[in-house]
Amino acid sequence: MPHSSGFDVSPWGIGRSGWDPHRQARRESVFSLSNGHIGWRGTIDEGDPCEVPGAYLNGLFEEHPMPYAEDGYAYPEHGEALINAPDGKVIRLLVGDEPLDIREGRLAHHEQRLDFRAGTLRRELRWTSPAGDTVHVESTRLVSLTHRPVAAIEYRVTAVGGPIDLTVLSEIVADEPPPRVHPDDRVMEPLKHPFEPIEQLAGTSGATLLLRTRRSGIGVAVAMDHVLEGADCTVGTAASDDVARTTVTTRLAAGDSIRLVKIVAHEWSDALTDAALRDRVQAAVAAATGLGWEGLAREQRDYLDRFWDSADIVLEGDARLQQAVRFALFQVLQSAARTEVRSIPGKGLTGPGYEGHTFWDAEAFLLPVLTYTIPDAAAHALRWRHSTLDLARERAEKLHLAGAAFPWRTVSGRECSGYWPAGTIAFHINADIAVALLRHVRVTGDADFEREVALEILVETARLWVSLGYRGRDGVFHIDGITGPDEYSALVDDNTFTNLAARRNLRGAAEAARRHPADARRFGVTDDEIGAWEGIAAAIAVPVDEERGVHQQSAGFTDLERWDFAATSHDQYPLQDHFPYFDLYRKQVVKQADLVLALQFFPEEFSADETARAFAYYEELTVRDSSLSASSQSVVAARVGHLDLAIEYLREAATIDLDDLRDDVDDGLHVAALAGVWSAVVSGLGGMRDGCRDLAFAPRLAAPLTRLAFGVRVAGSVLRVDVGADATTYELVGEGTLRIRHFGDVVDLEPGTPVRLNTPPQSEPGPRPSQPPGRSPREVRAAWGD
Amino acid sequence: MPHSSGFDVSPWGIGRSGWDPHRQARRESVFSLSNGHIGWRGTIDEGDPCEVPGAYLNGLFEEHPMPYAEDGYAYPEHGEALINAPDGKVIRLLVGDEPLDIREGRLAHHEQRLDFRAGTLRRELRWTSPAGDTVHVESTRLVSLTHRPVAAIEYRVTAVGGPIDLTVLSEIVADEPPPRVHPDDRVMEPLKHPFEPIEQLAGTSGATLLLRTRRSGIGVAVAMDHVLEGADCTVGTAASDDVARTTVTTRLAAGDSIRLVKIVAHEWSDALTDAALRDRVQAAVAAATGLGWEGLAREQRDYLDRFWDSADIVLEGDARLQQAVRFALFQVLQSAARTEVRSIPGKGLTGPGYEGHTFWDAEAFLLPVLTYTIPDAAAHALRWRHSTLDLARERAEKLHLAGAAFPWRTVSGRECSGYWPAGTIAFHINADIAVALLRHVRVTGDADFEREVALEILVETARLWVSLGYRGRDGVFHIDGITGPDEYSALVDDNTFTNLAARRNLRGAAEAARRHPADARRFGVTDDEIGAWEGIAAAIAVPVDEERGVHQQSAGFTDLERWDFAATSHDQYPLQDHFPYFDLYRKQVVKQADLVLALQFFPEEFSADETARAFAYYEELTVRDSSLSASSQSVVAARVGHLDLAIEYLREAATIDLDDLRDDVDDGLHVAALAGVWSAVVSGLGGMRDGCRDLAFAPRLAAPLTRLAFGVRVAGSVLRVDVGADATTYELVGEGTLRIRHFGDVVDLEPGTPVRLNTPPQSEPGPRPSQPPGRSPREVRAAWGD
Repeated sequence: MPHSSGFDVSPWGIGRSGWDPHRQARRESVFSLSNGHIGWRGTIDEGDPCEVPGAYLNGLFEEHPMPYAEDGYAYPEHGEALINAPDGKVIRLLVGDEPLDIREGRLAHHEQRLDFRAGTLRRELRWTSPAGDTVHVESTRLVSLTHRPVAAIEYRVTAVGGPIDLTVLSEIVADEPPPRVHPDDRVMEPLKHPFEPIEQLAGTSGATLLLRTRRSGIGVAVAMDHVLEGADCTVGTAASDDVARTTVTTRLAAGDSIRLVKIVAHEWSDALTDAALRDRVQAAVAAATGLGWEGLAREQRDYLDRFWDSADIVLEGDARLQQAVRFALFQVLQSAARTEVRSIPGKGLTGPGYEGHTFWDAEAFLLPVLTYTIPDAAAHALRWRHSTLDLARERAEKLHLAGAAFPWRTVSGRECSGYWPAGTIAFHINADIAVALLRHVRVTGDADFEREVALEILVETARLWVSLGYRGRDGVFHIDGITGPDEYSALVDDNTFTNLAARRNLRGAAEAARRHPADARRFGVTDDEIGAWEGIAAAIAVPVDEERGVHQQSAGFTDLERWDFAATSHDQYPLQDHFPYFDLYRKQVVKQADLVLALQFFPEEFSADETARAFAYYEELTVRDSSLSASSQSVVAARVGHLDLAIEYLREAATIDLDDLRDDVDDGLHVAALAGVWSAVVSGLGGMRDGCRDLAFAPRLAAPLTRLAFGVRVAGSVLRVDVGADATTYELVGEGTLRIRHFGDVVDLEPGTPVRLNTPPQSEPGPRPSQPPGRSPREVRAAWGD
Repeated sequence: MPHSSGFDVSPWGIGRSGWDPHRQARRESVFSLSNGHIGWRGTIDEGDPCEVPGAYLNGLFEEHPMPYAEDGYAYPEHGEALINAPDGKVIRLLVGDEPLDIREGRLAHHEQRLDFRAGTLRRELRWTSPAGDTVHVESTRLVSLTHRPVAAIEYRVTAVGGPIDLTVLSEIVADEPPPRVHPDDRVMEPLKHPFEPIEQLAGTSGATLLLRTRRSGIGVAVAMDHVLEGADCTVGTAASDDVARTTVTTRLAAGDSIRLVKIVAHEWSDALTDAALRDRVQAAVAAATGLGWEGLAREQRDYLDRFWDSADIVLEGDARLQQAVRFALFQVLQSAARTEVRSIPGKGLTGPGYEGHTFWDAEAFLLPVLTYTIPDAAAHALRWRHSTLDLARERAEKLHLAGAAFPWRTVSGRECSGYWPAGTIAFHINADIAVALLRHVRVTGDADFEREVALEILVETARLWVSLGYRGRDGVFHIDGITGPDEYSALVDDNTFTNLAARRNLRGAAEAARRHPADARRFGVTDDEIGAWEGIAAAIAVPVDEERGVHQQSAGFTDLERWDFAATSHDQYPLQDHFPYFDLYRKQVVKQADLVLALQFFPEEFSADETARAFAYYEELTVRDSSLSASSQSVVAARVGHLDLAIEYLREAATIDLDDLRDDVDDGLHVAALAGVWSAVVSGLGGMRDGCRDLAFAPRLAAPLTRLAFGVRVAGSVLRVDVGADATTYELVGEGTLRIRHFGDVVDLEPGTPVRLNTPPQSEPGPRPSQPPGRSPREVRAAWGD
């Protein structure tokens, strides 16, 4: 089912003209607005037609039962699903007696456009009702990056002919149908009508709805108010259990307009009283109304100008890739900007996919970007993990393990994985969190954060590894029977990625504890314990196939039977939908970068030759049935000198959602995959390595790119890197100095003194690695996208 | 929660006097009657009090949904649960106006007794109603071993004082409450009222109910009739949708009796018309009524006399063990006697446990006993597997495997396992079936059976192994990522038991195909394919820990971390209820005999030293959280010369249900564990080995036994083995001659000429193997039973 993206190509936005009922849900995902706290999918104003309505508040979930054909010890009893928050983005319009419905009447023009610099979704349409009245509608919406609880819509209707009677119905809709997240009715039942109405308040031009979820007990308040300009009109508001509606009626002469500014504020809490929730949203509405649309829009632009000033990636020579990369950055920003100690779900707040759960990819894929571009947001996401530490301790205890075991998937911090072989035992998530913490501390130099947040998690995850593994007869520390990143393997021994991540975790914990001895003692850390961590880190198993000279994804992996790729047809991908798990698990076939992710994350553990051999070996086995793979493959392809392949993987990663390469964008964007785009550019083409003391670069361009520029925030300053055909210019903006490496050479940078350094000639990278039949990046994109 | 058995000790029956409301369900299981087609739990006649009502027909199930928290490819969508058949064993009694209820009034005497030779459950009670009327009730029930659809009850009431007005209500109850087989309401819903009523017919003294299951579409007919003797009485019968009731009223003078004989017949089919079902049960009732109670009881006794004549095990020196062993044999007989091409469920027809599913233990544990004691029943059970071969082929195809993959658990032959790591991938079930077929053919010499039944299954399972494994770089044939018998390991490579069973499967298929070339060609077998089977059988991996000189349960097992037994408290057993699977799977801890089962089944693969070393090694790791373990440990303990340990394990196996050692007899008996008792005696103490050409024995007694005698059927004859303190007497009853071995020496037996051979002195067996703390057979029995 190939399909082309249908979006226009422009450097600072993405839009689509016309109206096509096919795959509306995909556009609703792509046009999502969010600030990390509120998420509004890109549904059209009048609510219909709509495929997935989607208004979300980060952390607002309802509990549901978890069914098992056969139960087992420590299986989660309850799941958590992101639910639709009361939806304040609905503005219906009656033209004469006819409701504006773009499937009826005549639609002369229709356009939606997401603006990466304005931070808005703009829509314009010209519609003639079946009765012959023509209106021009312009709406612009934003979810405020500067006012966390606020979203707003500027809505303007112009009568093309006239006079025309208009009725505008601006709503908060609290009972939108839930997505089918599970085939089991018993799971779905509590999600169908999750809210108990508490209170409804209606003024003249606005209203407040107060509700509470029945099982998770979360109070939610959403308030709206409206400012009207233009023609004379009458305004009134009514509110019932599950809808609040402000009704505006007017008569417009030909050429006249009415302009409605709708301010919506949101709050939820499982602790605040109903009165506190109500007062907060009403105060937020009042403040934002005072600021007005222009004020909100200006602040939004200013915020984004600051973001782009340091975080933008310039790619000259490929306009579509440039757009896709900025789209990726914009959506990553939106997912994380204002979470304020909340998680970043796998889909951000762009859809109901994965039930709104947060996974390891938050730390492994999003956190690198955030730490280097919006470190405050990174800190919030990590503080959220810290806030769930008690739950992780409880989980570890339940599993008879020491320390803390963070959940594989969750909204609240409780384990919600219903399939433990690719859930509970994917313990690498704990090291992924540790690695993200260590990076964040190293890059920001934030010692308070290290003491307040990082240290305790590092200690507790280090303890987890100690209890999870054991010293074998060979004196080596082994971690058996767990699952690494590759979900086509499970219950493996000594997963290299996991073990190397655990090594960094253990060493990082030891170093942090030595740096903050008083704090470490508070957590019961002794010198002996620190010594044990260091000893285990040194002794941890890293399995190598000596005969082939290739690192093993896990012990024995390279001895397994190879998957019969030749006998696998294109329509049997993704393999997990067409083959039983056990058959995938016991053969050499890789869903997603695992050993290659180890190459990306822990380059200091592999020589250049080992990296090249391993990349070539695993390329032949990697089918990329996960969105989390292409960016890592791009990074390592660039690192081993296969720049053309790196560009191909970058393109695949960057267009995964715009081209819907996985045929599932309806449920929301792949935010972590989009974050991987940044890594593919900065760590791949830019050659940035940050594992060691100095930030190192080895930037190279490849066709069709003629220039690449990006910035990274380090210790409060911004390092700008501008890569040309033959040389790279480094410029430090900020204070202090920064030592970096350029192709291994030490360079000390000072603010205001750009340094231009030549690119050394590239050595021959060896034969281009091959992928399984049909699974090269070009082939995947050809089959699905381009 | 220790408890003593409370049963009396007698050689040919088991009974209990008095009435104890505590653990009634356990007695209902122990007192079960069955012929393999019909199962009646030992509930009391009047229906109340009752814990688990239980009337079953082999193969009568209802479908239900299978819920999964996260779905996966090839997960079974529908489960199958044994349901209560219309229950014809209920006879209520009104004494005056008072219903006989043993919890009320005064119970002067109460006794239930299962008679292993009569094949009956007899009950006697003397009860005084709250109004002061005293009756003496005697009931005897049987499920006919000679008339497959028939069960009967002789029911006699005597007025101790009088006159007393009596009303007897004899019923078929069609809507008894279902057992809670699953916590999920969605699973339970279709099981609550599984029947649609079709027709109800009532005569004067009998009735017929016709029903059909709503989802599985199985038609069921149950008919009853009554013969009355004694006082004058009035009789009438009525039938409604879910109950048929014959009402008998009479007035008895003091000392007078009324005797009621109730004949019940059952039939079910998913193919027959309603009319055919009705006619069949009515004809069966008529025929049995003609025979009368005396006729049925006499035939029952004759059948059992024949069974005991050849199959009895005499154990002198331990009266309780003698009783327990006969109980085990009796229940094994009951589970299998008249299945007529139906399966033998894990619980027989004694309770709702495991949803009435059949597992590998039918072939691995029951079939050896059946082949050597009631070979016709063995043939029926194996013919049932053959009848499901098409379903097994479909399953293999779904899994992208060749040949046939039999289900891990099922009623109909469809896979019903909801947890694949200990279900679908326990592929050894296919070899277990093959091994049972090969034994059956070898022991019975039934060439027709080999051609009609065995060959096709052998061929298709051989093909499964070929497609499941692969030749490694080492030239060895490996089978990776499957699960062996031990359910505390899963997804292992080269499970020794599985590989040795597959080896026998492959060689047996090759030999059978060569013996029946024309039939083999019908199944597409070529000489090349036979050669491939032989080559793979020779090359299959058998992993050995060379350093320790110990066979590995699976590749790498002996390198795993050892379970911390010292830190595990008694109340943490069974471990699976207190630890997560992954932790059990990745450590050296054994739920049930696995490598030890390989020692038992494939003795030709291990030297005496290897056997002793392996047994000692795995004893230290085996916690026996499965009922299927003690008998195998007993067999191998005897084989390596630890006769005292063998006796302890035999006692545990034999009393597992009588002492409710696993605290779950409420749900039914462990029929396969009871079958293992036979193996513990015959293969263990008797030292019988049947893998090679000659049947070999090495019998030894151990304290407190002073004599052991048993018989095995071979090629239509019976070999009687009578073991004394210093010598063993072998006697062949039947025709032809039989070559056996006695401690390795060849002995040719002829009918009518018993041979007495001395027992050679025993060599020193080495130190007694130790078990994990608290898990020796004595300790387990002490904690739970004795």
